[in-house]
Amino acid sequence: MWPKLRFQLKGRVMNAQFPDLPNRVAIAHRAADAAAKVTLQWFHAPLIADNKRQDGFDPVTIADRDAETAIRALLAEEAPDDAILGEEFGASSGRSGWRWVLDPIDGTRAFITGIPLWTTLIGLEKDGEPVLGLIDQPYLRERYVGTPEGAQLLRGAEAPECLHIRHTEKLTTAVLMCTTPHMFNPAEAAAFQQVSDAARLTRFGADAYAYAQLAAGRVDLVIEAGLQLFDIAALIPVVRGAGGVFTDWRGGQNFAAGQVIAASSAGIAAEAQVALHRSAR
Amino acid sequence: MWPKLRFQLKGRVMNAQFPDLPNRVAIAHRAADAAAKVTLQWFHAPLIADNKRQDGFDPVTIADRDAETAIRALLAEEAPDDAILGEEFGASSGRSGWRWVLDPIDGTRAFITGIPLWTTLIGLEKDGEPVLGLIDQPYLRERYVGTPEGAQLLRGAEAPECLHIRHTEKLTTAVLMCTTPHMFNPAEAAAFQQVSDAARLTRFGADAYAYAQLAAGRVDLVIEAGLQLFDIAALIPVVRGAGGVFTDWRGGQNFAAGQVIAASSAGIAAEAQVALHRSAR
Repeated sequence: MWPKLRFQLKGRVMNAQFPDLPNRVAIAHRAADAAAKVTLQWFHAPLIADNKRQDGFDPVTIADRDAETAIRALLAEEAPDDAILGEEFGASSGRSGWRWVLDPIDGTRAFITGIPLWTTLIGLEKDGEPVLGLIDQPYLRERYVGTPEGAQLLRGAEAPECLHIRHTEKLTTAVLMCTTPHMFNPAEAAAFQQVSDAARLTRFGADAYAYAQLAAGRVDLVIEAGLQLFDIAALIPVVRGAGGVFTDWRGGQNFAAGQVIAASSAGIAAEAQVALHRSAR
Repeated sequence: MWPKLRFQLKGRVMNAQFPDLPNRVAIAHRAADAAAKVTLQWFHAPLIADNKRQDGFDPVTIADRDAETAIRALLAEEAPDDAILGEEFGASSGRSGWRWVLDPIDGTRAFITGIPLWTTLIGLEKDGEPVLGLIDQPYLRERYVGTPEGAQLLRGAEAPECLHIRHTEKLTTAVLMCTTPHMFNPAEAAAFQQVSDAARLTRFGADAYAYAQLAAGRVDLVIEAGLQLFDIAALIPVVRGAGGVFTDWRGGQNFAAGQVIAASSAGIAAEAQVALHRSAR
């Protein structure tokens, strides 16, 4: 369904640093294809009556599990020595130094409500460093891919489109996104509000798709909290590949507390950190 | 681009009541096609640097104006005796008893941020009664249409799909949507929070697309405030056509204050009104 990423001249540098990466990029695409078959089958499926749902029937639960199962089956075949961390089935160890980090459906509320902004997140780390990220929205046929080489948007068979953040230097001209104000504790909410008051506009409700739009140059800042590692891992290479900045609320790289800043410039990220670092955990 | 709505046997009743409606349904589709040509041209267009935007260059402003101009040009040709109320160019009078109510781009923040949940809203009233509603999302190729006959989803050349709300009777099992918690004044926000606390889940950020998902049976309740008539007119026939309930916060039909409840059942609407009516204006 999706063409392999082609690594051009510049790719030789990356290939030298991560010689096994191009092969794993191709595996990631096949994994996303496998997940898409499952998720699209259940997206827009009617919810069965409540009593049945309590017996375990919930389209998003089934889709989440089956999609991760499909990805894991593919990885077991094609990258059996890699470790995996997945939202649904936890951690399995490997011995290659590579670890796949999976969120088969990021944005379950979007999925449930028919909103095509949920995504399948496939991240890949080498010795703990996020190297490949894939944000897939198969209903829109949009797949955002990031590596140290750069970031691209793939739409079906169309030619890949290179993604670049836009150059916005000041928070007062920035467009801010966040999935929901309910994701913050009271201290975080106050800090977020301070940033939101300064920004040009704030919009809620896009989950990982917001980071993809930042990479595509349409959003300048995403601030979130309460995220899990499997929500985050795939985002980092996409945002950085497009030229963006990705930090925790202190400006560092410790995402264990689930607090994230993604920004189109170091200047905007720094302005956001001024408000956010006091609520950093 | 879109097939005409076919009025089946049951349609004879409606045709007797509104003999000019089928023709105007066809006009509405052509108007939406004309608007889509403009909006799709500007959606995802890069924002030009800030200083230029202050000179008037703003893709969403241009798209909004040009889309309404395109619709008005078509209506001037095909329904010259109808009145028009549009977001961008205000009111023009007519003498046929029909009035078109237009919001060329509902969800400008979605449009700006690359989120494909903005819609073109085309409503049509006969002697003040909303009779036809069209919610068009051309990037997704989804067009939701409601008349007294019912509601349908049209996807390009595919066969129309009849829309029906799902049967959810209690607020505690309901999925609630709302564009942003910032649309409420403090009293409204407190009332909304009360409903949100009781609902099964709440999701923000879908503008008019939320009402389309309610009609499609994926959302049970939409509560909003601060809306204008041109935000509302097209929604009513879609929600009612699918079997839903559409009222103000008192349970009446006075939308001048911009407070709206759309629900999949009278029971859920009544539960919401208990919390909301004290903040009704």
